[in-house]
Amino acid sequence: MNRAFIFDVFGTLVNWREGVATIVALAFKENGITVDPYTFADAWRARYDPAMERIRVQGRSYVALDVLHRENLDATLTEFGIGNNFSNDDREGLNQSWEKLPVWTDVHDGLDRLKLLGFVAPCSNASIALSMRLARFAGLNWDSIVGAEIAQNYKPAREVYLSSCKTLGFEPENVVMVAAHNADLVAARLAGLQTAFVVRPNEYGAAQTVDLIPESDWTYVAKDLIDLAEQVKSLS
Amino acid sequence: MNRAFIFDVFGTLVNWREGVATIVALAFKENGITVDPYTFADAWRARYDPAMERIRVQGRSYVALDVLHRENLDATLTEFGIGNNFSNDDREGLNQSWEKLPVWTDVHDGLDRLKLLGFVAPCSNASIALSMRLARFAGLNWDSIVGAEIAQNYKPAREVYLSSCKTLGFEPENVVMVAAHNADLVAARLAGLQTAFVVRPNEYGAAQTVDLIPESDWTYVAKDLIDLAEQVKSLS
Repeated sequence: MNRAFIFDVFGTLVNWREGVATIVALAFKENGITVDPYTFADAWRARYDPAMERIRVQGRSYVALDVLHRENLDATLTEFGIGNNFSNDDREGLNQSWEKLPVWTDVHDGLDRLKLLGFVAPCSNASIALSMRLARFAGLNWDSIVGAEIAQNYKPAREVYLSSCKTLGFEPENVVMVAAHNADLVAARLAGLQTAFVVRPNEYGAAQTVDLIPESDWTYVAKDLIDLAEQVKSLS
Repeated sequence: MNRAFIFDVFGTLVNWREGVATIVALAFKENGITVDPYTFADAWRARYDPAMERIRVQGRSYVALDVLHRENLDATLTEFGIGNNFSNDDREGLNQSWEKLPVWTDVHDGLDRLKLLGFVAPCSNASIALSMRLARFAGLNWDSIVGAEIAQNYKPAREVYLSSCKTLGFEPENVVMVAAHNADLVAARLAGLQTAFVVRPNEYGAAQTVDLIPESDWTYVAKDLIDLAEQVKSLS
């Protein structure tokens, strides 16, 4: 067992857009709000990367993703002019949608197969607590949880990958970063990790235009986690 | 799921003495060494607390338990006058005995039951990597791994308990520290956690004289993890 697989989570393992929109839709219905929940989920998610960028490069101290999600929710509710409809408790409930997300259909079987080939851990921008709660909801059985919180910074900052490998006790060359996002793999490769691209053509819905193809010669290119496990197994 | 259980591992969940002695016995047999493997395991373990004390109070910077175990192994081999029999590779193999330890018989069933009542994580002095490898060997399915490495210090230092609770996203009052060692629970209680004493009368073999009884009014006193789960469930 001289190998570890570490995983991007939002988009790569779970369908955040569907999960968030489902919970938003319920809350909007209760409040008689007619905003499309997918439009709202997309707008909320659009604030994700700029919020992390303030920590990665603009000097803000690390705060957990749960905090950024909440700040971004508040801003998005204001953006849509519906802030007055939601109390603090309502907002906490909406914020917890990020720990109640459905997995893509190959994930359980794929992770079970990959666990026979190495250790498995999420390397997400989620906090350890959020990763843990999401794992329970989604039935993800991790060996351990690493990622942004370990490094007190956000992907694609180099130290997130390096500190995650170190925490798991592996050299980067013996760790495979699995992601549906080319940019994540660019950074992982620069840090010395192996890379696996798994295409998720519907992460952003039917109109998705990004990350539909591997944009480099990643170590592995797979149609899903089961395919990835079979490829790794055949090379072992 | 508004509760977490965190666990001492060596002694509370796994029988380190039996596991280490088993691997030591094989190595000694191969080398024609007649030292009793249990005596050797006890001597190796006796160096554990003083080694941590150098980090807790004597100013040594944190190093992982794997490193302390190796240093203590080297010293113990010298103590018994058998250092020349073991190469660096031999010593690494012996050191890995700490990740190949058998669980007490109630642990799998007990942990399964406790997982229905809360999140579960080891809060051990082992590093995250060591905890992870031991968990795979022993079949311990954790939600996450916390403990000494999170705090860069060793139990019973207060910050190990507090940083473990914070990492899991729980206030200390909603976390139960489970241990077979009264001293561990004294420190956990001072940090604000709930406490559960599980007696392990054979951790140190048949001649054990310590930790045979609860030395305070711990939140729970249980004969094993199954009993603990039943007690917690009946109060929920």
